Amino acid sequence: MKWYYGKASSEGVVLSSRVRLARNLENYPFPKKCSPDTKKEICQKIKNTVEQLACERFNYINMEDQSVIDKNILLEDHLVSREFCEGDCAGKLLITDEQNTVSVMINEEDHLRIQSIMPGLDIEGAYERANYIDDIICQGEKVAFDEKLGYLTSCPTNLGTGMRASVMLHLPALTSCGQIKNLVVLMTKIGLTVRGLYGEGSEAEGCLYQVSNQITLGVSEKDAIEKLTSAVGQIVERERQLRETLLSGGGLDFEDSICRSYGILRYAKKLSSKEFLKLWSDVKFGVESGVIRDIHDINLTRMLVEVMPAHILAKYPEAAQSSKRDEKRAEMIKNYLM
Amino acid sequence: MKWYYGKASSEGVVLSSRVRLARNLENYPFPKKCSPDTKKEICQKIKNTVEQLACERFNYINMEDQSVIDKNILLEDHLVSREFCEGDCAGKLLITDEQNTVSVMINEEDHLRIQSIMPGLDIEGAYERANYIDDIICQGEKVAFDEKLGYLTSCPTNLGTGMRASVMLHLPALTSCGQIKNLVVLMTKIGLTVRGLYGEGSEAEGCLYQVSNQITLGVSEKDAIEKLTSAVGQIVERERQLRETLLSGGGLDFEDSICRSYGILRYAKKLSSKEFLKLWSDVKFGVESGVIRDIHDINLTRMLVEVMPAHILAKYPEAAQSSKRDEKRAEMIKNYLM
Repeated sequence: MKWYYGKASSEGVVLSSRVRLARNLENYPFPKKCSPDTKKEICQKIKNTVEQLACERFNYINMEDQSVIDKNILLEDHLVSREFCEGDCAGKLLITDEQNTVSVMINEEDHLRIQSIMPGLDIEGAYERANYIDDIICQGEKVAFDEKLGYLTSCPTNLGTGMRASVMLHLPALTSCGQIKNLVVLMTKIGLTVRGLYGEGSEAEGCLYQVSNQITLGVSEKDAIEKLTSAVGQIVERERQLRETLLSGGGLDFEDSICRSYGILRYAKKLSSKEFLKLWSDVKFGVESGVIRDIHDINLTRMLVEVMPAHILAKYPEAAQSSKRDEKRAEMIKNYLM
Repeated sequence: MKWYYGKASSEGVVLSSRVRLARNLENYPFPKKCSPDTKKEICQKIKNTVEQLACERFNYINMEDQSVIDKNILLEDHLVSREFCEGDCAGKLLITDEQNTVSVMINEEDHLRIQSIMPGLDIEGAYERANYIDDIICQGEKVAFDEKLGYLTSCPTNLGTGMRASVMLHLPALTSCGQIKNLVVLMTKIGLTVRGLYGEGSEAEGCLYQVSNQITLGVSEKDAIEKLTSAVGQIVERERQLRETLLSGGGLDFEDSICRSYGILRYAKKLSSKEFLKLWSDVKFGVESGVIRDIHDINLTRMLVEVMPAHILAKYPEAAQSSKRDEKRAEMIKNYLM
């Protein structure tokens, strides 16, 4: 089971909601200053705590033992950060539950990065799940906490709640109308950040954007979540209005371009990741707006993740060359759509 | 019934075969020098002859009474020449049989242009059919014929047999490999001409070419037909070889572009004539080469003709604007392909 097997509730604009909590243990330096042995000690301590106190079974993934493909699958699944996969992986441990709704990175930037991801708009649900793990850790470990500053973190931007809540949005209409720049400015003004599919610095391919809270100091988790939820609600509303305008106002031009993308996605024999994301975005828009009527009950979020390079490679080891991967991607998509 | 309802025999490379005979009546000036009354007299004479001597029923279409749309339908059906539709149509009569396999233009460049068109490679069949009409005319009328020069025609390029035999070829592989120029040079050397879809001066859209005999003086009809048939056989052979090379040699690139065209043709909401011809050509190639397997028993030649502008307009009078016609074209194609 993966988080993206689930059905999203909010009619497609919001793909997923994510909350991560940054935590550190008292009496240990931050990971950057830890020796490999100390890191391993921290991993073992936390693993023991989770095993003793949690009622459910967890997977413990030693990042040092993971192949490049395995690491990239975790990355494409949004279970780990790019930073967690890169460089020396000694003393990096990933803890996940069976459903992959929660993952704990040990010795990323902080000792603990507890993360929960849920399909659709469900920041509250993601927070509850992450919080449940946080409670377990706090029961078994002395967590670095200051009465005035809150949770102490390696980077001062996470001080306070140590919480980053984010949602993944699909915004084809806002993108098509050139309103993303305005959105970014507006969100920044109210302390929120807009980024591309794979987080910081990544390009917004497939009209996919992450919106997250920026401020962790001087606000409660509850307030931060409410603020983000409210902002996302407004973005979703605006996106829906614009979709209607685009479809009713522009003659057949918009429908035509959506349907052509569908035709290509369905019949092409080769598709690069980049082209796929563009077509995927059009088709998702088309399905949700009723322009494309001949595919039903397709989990487009799952498709999005499962045709990313590492996922293809894991299934087809012969597809090491990107051109071969482009063929396999087209094949897999055909199977989804038929 | 129209000629293009029939199934072609030669596996798609040859769409149709056509023979036309130029004839003139003795004791009348060529049409260009005729008064409107004389032209009408000629029409009446020939009509009487056909009615008296032919065993089958013919349609008599007075070009003066035809709307612009009707004329263009005849043109798109390849039953008349553009010249026959343009200018003053007084005294122009078209005679066709029920199956539209034969048409006689009265007072085009010559008094009579007897034309027969057959699906696939069947120049012989087209000649026989045209010849049958020619025999009827010759029984009832004094046809201008010179022992030394043969049939006398308005333009000296038709002197002799007065016969132009042509085949319509679909040559996507030769086009894609840039070999059309060579073909034109080669054909010219042996007295044959290569032209686009709608004859002289027209562009070769949809990889469609007409190959016809140029020489009418000093050769028999039989020899001219044999020469053309043999040349066409060689072109077809070369085209087939190249198709195999393209599909086996180029990896998936060629299949990919064919399949994308199919996807667009199937799902687009708007298609111009020009874009349609390009996609149609790819899809025809794809069906014949087995790359596209999910459409069967589709008469692509019929589709080609029936989505041309005048045919659409006749069916949907509201589609006077070309943008509206592009929508109807896409709709019609969807219906063909579903």
